[in-house]
Amino acid sequence: MTAPFNEDSTLKLARRLADVAWTAIRPHFRSGVAAENKGGTGVRYDPVTVADKAAEEAIREILAAERPDDGIDGEEFGRQEGTSGWTWLIDPIDGTRAFLAGLPVWTTLIALVDPDGHPVLGMIDQPVLGERYIGGPSGTFLEKDGTRTQLHVSACNDLRDAVIATTDPFIMTPPEQGAWTHLRHTARISRYGLDAYGYARLAGGTIDLVCETGLQAHDVAALIPVVRGAGGIARDWRGNEAKLGSQIVCAASEEVFEQALISLRRSAL
Amino acid sequence: MTAPFNEDSTLKLARRLADVAWTAIRPHFRSGVAAENKGGTGVRYDPVTVADKAAEEAIREILAAERPDDGIDGEEFGRQEGTSGWTWLIDPIDGTRAFLAGLPVWTTLIALVDPDGHPVLGMIDQPVLGERYIGGPSGTFLEKDGTRTQLHVSACNDLRDAVIATTDPFIMTPPEQGAWTHLRHTARISRYGLDAYGYARLAGGTIDLVCETGLQAHDVAALIPVVRGAGGIARDWRGNEAKLGSQIVCAASEEVFEQALISLRRSAL
Repeated sequence: MTAPFNEDSTLKLARRLADVAWTAIRPHFRSGVAAENKGGTGVRYDPVTVADKAAEEAIREILAAERPDDGIDGEEFGRQEGTSGWTWLIDPIDGTRAFLAGLPVWTTLIALVDPDGHPVLGMIDQPVLGERYIGGPSGTFLEKDGTRTQLHVSACNDLRDAVIATTDPFIMTPPEQGAWTHLRHTARISRYGLDAYGYARLAGGTIDLVCETGLQAHDVAALIPVVRGAGGIARDWRGNEAKLGSQIVCAASEEVFEQALISLRRSAL
Repeated sequence: MTAPFNEDSTLKLARRLADVAWTAIRPHFRSGVAAENKGGTGVRYDPVTVADKAAEEAIREILAAERPDDGIDGEEFGRQEGTSGWTWLIDPIDGTRAFLAGLPVWTTLIALVDPDGHPVLGMIDQPVLGERYIGGPSGTFLEKDGTRTQLHVSACNDLRDAVIATTDPFIMTPPEQGAWTHLRHTARISRYGLDAYGYARLAGGTIDLVCETGLQAHDVAALIPVVRGAGGIARDWRGNEAKLGSQIVCAASEEVFEQALISLRRSAL
């Protein structure tokens, strides 16, 4: 049997999860914490820290008590199937490189995915800034300093005026790099290294387009409700509905999206 | 006649300047403020906002009252000579692109330069984060949430372990890009788009090397005391003492600096 979705109680629980994550992470931020190399000796460096693991454990402990029938899929400890049909997707520290560099643009990602695989609630939490971006059926909100503000994407409708972002152009394949180069020469301002925080600021109206590749489900699930709840678009590089992984492009408007697609489609997977 | 330098009273004044700058800037952050294009229709986009100008005016007003004999050199309103031999170098919003993208990594830069052209006090202020990095003869300190913490650079002594940063590899000349590519393939983690905040985190021990090109005096003057006061190195790309502009490289240790210089020297100006 599939349990009904209650936005209010789910949101309350998500807030608790983000709170315990920050409690676990906080002692390690800017503490000189050592990073293991999860990727082994390969070319791509994939750091994981004590903080990631401690945060995901704290989140899993609460979910085991409060939502024992739900599944969990977390970056550090993998997937555990549930019986309710609902799954929590967790990335305790999205942007581990930013975290290790002591920068306040890493985030904790929490999403709830329905039995059809659609994320219905997403949270992008940046606790150093005290910014919690939450997207769900009733819209997207920024909770900060005790206030809750509804967010809307920008009115940008021309890629030439757009502020665009991607996490790292140097991890893209050559065709993807070509697409990005095309985009950044068209757009007004390009930003890098933001991971999920870029999508939060898209929802907040200060970034107009974000595109990325090589993503996993727990990187993406929280972003989609945050972007859509603020009136934005979330698709893949072919222009189809965003999937839980691989290539994603989010935009403030159909116009900016369509203009970006000209560059992106050729290197769509 | 050259007035004597008093670190304590100068610091108190610098804090006031940063406070009035934030008061002037705050209404414009994430407000959808329009950017004029200071660079005209050329290739390089050089945005300047109402916020930059309002902040520099507020700073100049205080300096005119409190230090009428000192010179001022600000990004927005240029240089005004003084009679004391001392000059204040001001960049009200360093990282205007980050500011326009709604990212909390722009900073207000305030420096006091002595009659010999050496910056003796530098402040890198990030008010959204409430972080104020201050370097002077007594060391470098982070003031945040009412506490004052002395900062030290990291113990990193191998470029292969280093977290490195530059603002934008795509504004570099081809030889400079070659040097950066060499560096980023050697280093552990690369970050972009931080402007002066990268040097603040170098002082804070979470970034190990920052190198940049095309800088102006008001971009650089505040960084040097912050980096040196935390035990770091500030040089040009030839390995000479950092100048107030052009190419700069700052490192946590002589070892990391020397290893970086292998890449940088060939494209030194």
